Amino acid sequence: MCPSRLILEHVTSRWGVLVLAALLERSHRFSELRRRIGGVSEKMLAQTLQTLERDGFVHRDAKPVIPPRVDYTLTGLGREAAEQVWALARWTERQVPEVAAARAAYDEEKARPAATA
Amino acid sequence: MCPSRLILEHVTSRWGVLVLAALLERSHRFSELRRRIGGVSEKMLAQTLQTLERDGFVHRDAKPVIPPRVDYTLTGLGREAAEQVWALARWTERQVPEVAAARAAYDEEKARPAATA
Repeated sequence: MCPSRLILEHVTSRWGVLVLAALLERSHRFSELRRRIGGVSEKMLAQTLQTLERDGFVHRDAKPVIPPRVDYTLTGLGREAAEQVWALARWTERQVPEVAAARAAYDEEKARPAATA
Repeated sequence: MCPSRLILEHVTSRWGVLVLAALLERSHRFSELRRRIGGVSEKMLAQTLQTLERDGFVHRDAKPVIPPRVDYTLTGLGREAAEQVWALARWTERQVPEVAAARAAYDEEKARPAATA
């Protein structure tokens, strides 16, 4: 698989999109992110953040305080990715009715008996 | 899964991105698309086209000629999707070196023995 494909998969993955969108707004702590996104397991969120951190999109800022405090922030590169991915996700959301109509028309067409020549 | 998620997966899928990009340039016949994209099986390409057609992104134009001729074209909605997805894919490609550097730094950091307090 070409390397850019793997990056594209990271930023458009189910949780990747939502993490990037939340961090586009502001930095979040892990527990805040988890509440914000909803439906994501602790393990999946940790994995998503680690992947995005390793790619250089997310910065993990562990503050040396007691109790420990870790903030997740977008890097410059992460902000660029997040803006594009989030624009695409919002565009997609706006097209849901039109896509649903297209699917209904397609399915109806397929269900119709073939016209005889 | 929310409906927009499924649409996003269709347009950012491995073959979805490449089909949209090829059609953004011009209409293609099935065999042209398959040669153009490379590495895609006949079955996967047919499935990808069918999914994009059903969503209303691709128009399948079967001309009543002998031998039969089928052209695949973007709809207006498909063009909007293709432009955004392709911009994101090209951006991702340009970031490959930076992401590779980030990964190397991350892996090196992880491999280092933890500093003692």
